[in-house]
Amino acid sequence: MAKRTWTLLNVAEDQFVEKLELTSKDVDGVPEGLSIIKRRLYGGMRDGVDVIEVDNGAFRFVVVPTRGMGLWRATLGEVQLGWQAPVKGGPIHPSLVRLEAADGLGWMDGFDELLARCGLESNGSPVFNEAGVLRYPLHGKIQNIPAHQVEVSIDDSGEITISGVVDESRLFCGTVDDAELFGKKLRLTTSYTTKPGEPGVRIVDTVSNLSAVRGEFQMIYHINVGTPLVNAGSKLVAPVAKVAPRFLVEAEAIPTWDTYPAPAVGGHSACLYHDLLADASGRTHVLLHNAEATQGVSIFLNKNQLPCFTQWKNVQAVEDGYVTGLEPGTNFPNERPFEAKQGRVVTLQGGESRTFEFAIEAHADAKSIAAAKKDVLKLQAGREPEVLHEPNPEWSIT
Amino acid sequence: MAKRTWTLLNVAEDQFVEKLELTSKDVDGVPEGLSIIKRRLYGGMRDGVDVIEVDNGAFRFVVVPTRGMGLWRATLGEVQLGWQAPVKGGPIHPSLVRLEAADGLGWMDGFDELLARCGLESNGSPVFNEAGVLRYPLHGKIQNIPAHQVEVSIDDSGEITISGVVDESRLFCGTVDDAELFGKKLRLTTSYTTKPGEPGVRIVDTVSNLSAVRGEFQMIYHINVGTPLVNAGSKLVAPVAKVAPRFLVEAEAIPTWDTYPAPAVGGHSACLYHDLLADASGRTHVLLHNAEATQGVSIFLNKNQLPCFTQWKNVQAVEDGYVTGLEPGTNFPNERPFEAKQGRVVTLQGGESRTFEFAIEAHADAKSIAAAKKDVLKLQAGREPEVLHEPNPEWSIT
Amino acid sequence: MAKRTWTLLNVAEDQFVEKLELTSKDVDGVPEGLSIIKRRLYGGMRDGVDVIEVDNGAFRFVVVPTRGMGLWRATLGEVQLGWQAPVKGGPIHPSLVRLEAADGLGWMDGFDELLARCGLESNGSPVFNEAGVLRYPLHGKIQNIPAHQVEVSIDDSGEITISGVVDESRLFCGTVDDAELFGKKLRLTTSYTTKPGEPGVRIVDTVSNLSAVRGEFQMIYHINVGTPLVNAGSKLVAPVAKVAPRFLVEAEAIPTWDTYPAPAVGGHSACLYHDLLADASGRTHVLLHNAEATQGVSIFLNKNQLPCFTQWKNVQAVEDGYVTGLEPGTNFPNERPFEAKQGRVVTLQGGESRTFEFAIEAHADAKSIAAAKKDVLKLQAGREPEVLHEPNPEWSIT
Repeated sequence: MAKRTWTLLNVAEDQFVEKLELTSKDVDGVPEGLSIIKRRLYGGMRDGVDVIEVDNGAFRFVVVPTRGMGLWRATLGEVQLGWQAPVKGGPIHPSLVRLEAADGLGWMDGFDELLARCGLESNGSPVFNEAGVLRYPLHGKIQNIPAHQVEVSIDDSGEITISGVVDESRLFCGTVDDAELFGKKLRLTTSYTTKPGEPGVRIVDTVSNLSAVRGEFQMIYHINVGTPLVNAGSKLVAPVAKVAPRFLVEAEAIPTWDTYPAPAVGGHSACLYHDLLADASGRTHVLLHNAEATQGVSIFLNKNQLPCFTQWKNVQAVEDGYVTGLEPGTNFPNERPFEAKQGRVVTLQGGESRTFEFAIEAHADAKSIAAAKKDVLKLQAGREPEVLHEPNPEWSIT
Repeated sequence: MAKRTWTLLNVAEDQFVEKLELTSKDVDGVPEGLSIIKRRLYGGMRDGVDVIEVDNGAFRFVVVPTRGMGLWRATLGEVQLGWQAPVKGGPIHPSLVRLEAADGLGWMDGFDELLARCGLESNGSPVFNEAGVLRYPLHGKIQNIPAHQVEVSIDDSGEITISGVVDESRLFCGTVDDAELFGKKLRLTTSYTTKPGEPGVRIVDTVSNLSAVRGEFQMIYHINVGTPLVNAGSKLVAPVAKVAPRFLVEAEAIPTWDTYPAPAVGGHSACLYHDLLADASGRTHVLLHNAEATQGVSIFLNKNQLPCFTQWKNVQAVEDGYVTGLEPGTNFPNERPFEAKQGRVVTLQGGESRTFEFAIEAHADAKSIAAAKKDVLKLQAGREPEVLHEPNPEWSIT
Repeated sequence: MAKRTWTLLNVAEDQFVEKLELTSKDVDGVPEGLSIIKRRLYGGMRDGVDVIEVDNGAFRFVVVPTRGMGLWRATLGEVQLGWQAPVKGGPIHPSLVRLEAADGLGWMDGFDELLARCGLESNGSPVFNEAGVLRYPLHGKIQNIPAHQVEVSIDDSGEITISGVVDESRLFCGTVDDAELFGKKLRLTTSYTTKPGEPGVRIVDTVSNLSAVRGEFQMIYHINVGTPLVNAGSKLVAPVAKVAPRFLVEAEAIPTWDTYPAPAVGGHSACLYHDLLADASGRTHVLLHNAEATQGVSIFLNKNQLPCFTQWKNVQAVEDGYVTGLEPGTNFPNERPFEAKQGRVVTLQGGESRTFEFAIEAHADAKSIAAAKKDVLKLQAGREPEVLHEPNPEWSIT
């Protein structure tokens, strides 16, 4: 099948396209209604941010090369995927995200996306030394590194792919053998693919070790959905083998783990850790839908690639960021040293790489949600989830 | 009265105007000589900074949306308001201001303005933990956050208003009740208004709590004037109930608190804290004029809104930043925890806001200065200022 | 001799040229083949970086005003000066270089140049307090400060000069006498000059104290060359009085100090400190050439200006940054307090300045290398280098 490709950015080849508008008319034979717009945003905290707005005729989404190829927002008709973050005016330019703030929470300066990648050297809670000096900031750097290579392609069937390359890499040198010093040269190669009329997008990520020596990485896909999809009585439908609170103080969220309350002024945040069920190939599926079961979102993933699943229930007022995070990852968002001890930091030998494939699909009607629910229940296969009311010591620092 | 409005920036509506030039010709019926130029600066540390240059036919000033709607410089004929900062090439882009530097002084990287706002979460001296890890950097973030909404309007009388909105807001989430964690979602809405021929500008700021829960803020208006207006023998004329040095080491500046010496190589800095007198409505007025009483600047403010007044006498060589700061605020520029203990951190309930109104007026002749002086003396009403030669324990950490 | 000058940037005069292309045709009477292109780079981590690409008909080099007037890369025919840094997509914009990272290594985010200046307030290894809080980050700020004034000139003979001014200056104020507080207002004025056909470039730097009071500075010229010039068997030919390892663990590099091994997976880094020999005027010369003695680079410098010479042998795999640094400086790259104790921090009285002149020359054939070698050997004059197998306590923290 023939495919046309447009380079939007290739730093190595000194190529940059500030603005590009492609529609079905630009590619012979593809279906009507496709549109891809690459443009640069100006003003405020988004000044200089490049975005790619894709419309496959039904599903629309915005990819942000300047923010590590993150996925900003998506819509399918009335269904809005994403959330109303307290950070307004995004997507926020990485140069204004003060990652190195001493409290380790600088990442929050730019956090407003539907999909934010957490990694690569580290993710999870900030880590400090005994005196309180920051060692690993919250959720790492990759989401705040601009891509250096970006392409869009359309094949004869009208399938659109946005691909990009983001490097988290710099010199490390030392006088002794130390993988911590040497091996931190990682590359994220990502693609977003969608067909005409498809109600979602498929994502393929490869994390490569550019170094000749051993390196390590972590990856969590921080997928965030808020109001109006999430509302009082909305449900997470997931094939669960075991679920546990991260901390004991979060156990209050356990009895109603799969249900969301209304936004609550001064409400709390809880992280629930899940061991999902999957089929023989590792395929699994989680569904989130509103109370009325008329709007929803599915995440399709492979548990062999992403064994850990975190459900973040952040039940604050809407203006304070009412949102749930559905977060498949190579690990749980604990402090990196704990995850390392539990074997949940990925090792890559020199030149080695690891691939992650998942998909995000919106549901705009009851029928589609019913079908998705049926798929999840088939994975559950009648097994009763093991619901822990205390943290699991293998999953949490207790 | 009819008013025409131009949107210069509205991120939410995806509107940005790189360049706009308005003059009296663009608005029917307004007086001659008005000019408003919005443009972007390029190169050096100012690259990408947007400025709005306003000329009301007499008074000219520059507002900087990219730097939190700060007021960069102003002139009235020969009178220059502002100072010769050791930072050259400003206004400095916030992305090059390393606010998170471990010494807490990163804010200085961008400090070159006539009016810099200090806040909103905190202002004043940097605060560290016991090990020396930064908790609150000097003077907070608001001056280094770009506005996301900016408008200019002109009414039939030729009155010009520049308004902007700046958010210091991001997600906070926690597992327990903690106002420090939740409530830090603050919005500054500011307007600068001037009439044709008016010798100054009137400022109205509103600080709003965007959160549904309780929040706190601090605000100091750091108004800075240097050479040539400030010179040997220049005077601060202020209606003073009480004045005290911040630190004992600064008490050397007390005996001549209202007079400025010539620039001095290797000279020192002193902060003097004032309790100003005001009329029944809270209205008060401070005047700074040169030795010859031919150039000056007045600040009109309301003590009910801004109860604390700091006079910063920085008597260094001109090339090292000879300057005085006239700094009305909700608090004194001490470390935030001390100000909190003294009740000088403002609490806002969810959705609540607080407004500050003040004006800056230039004086270009002896007559205008004499009139201003008369107004201040009327507020003083013959009362003798209480001059403390040691810090006031309610005002300073002693 | 007549000279034409083009201003590319002058912030004080509000001048900025986004793009300029000059060739021999633009200047009457100069030789054919000259070209100067000033342009802005877009996309990725280099977005907004201004570069000046100079071709004198033989030698080509790229100066980066946005990165402190650094020298990015140079070529003479087949000879490539520079290296393959693990940071891809440079030159990196300073706003994305997280200088204030708690580990003190943020400078590495942008390190990919042939010539990076280290200074001015400090350079060398990061310095921390007892609790591990950063005091001086690695290699200082100057390389990550954009120039505020840039010019290009061509004289009748076709000699090209690129000059720029970079300020590392901001307000410091205190209540006591403290040169650390007051004097940190430094200016770098630099020029790169080359004649038609010249195989290199001559650099003149002046560091000035803009303050009226005493200030201090440090300067190391971090000149970096990697593959293919550096290969197994390549040689450093330098007139050496004494050479010592920085640390004992680096002494393994001493027996073969003047020879480079092949890139080595997981290889180590060593810094060797040299006391170079010079002629009566201070003139000295170091040569680096490949194993075949067909490609090389000379650095001509004055030991009276730059008394310390560091050779950095970073023998990692090519993808991990195989490179040697040839680093003349006012000091060795130790922690600043140690260098201060050893008298290797430069003091400048108010308004005083210090000038550094050096040249980088490429060698594209055996004959040119032989001539360079002869010049170095003449400086060596048969004296045997004193080769220390342990650190010299005057040069290193032991």
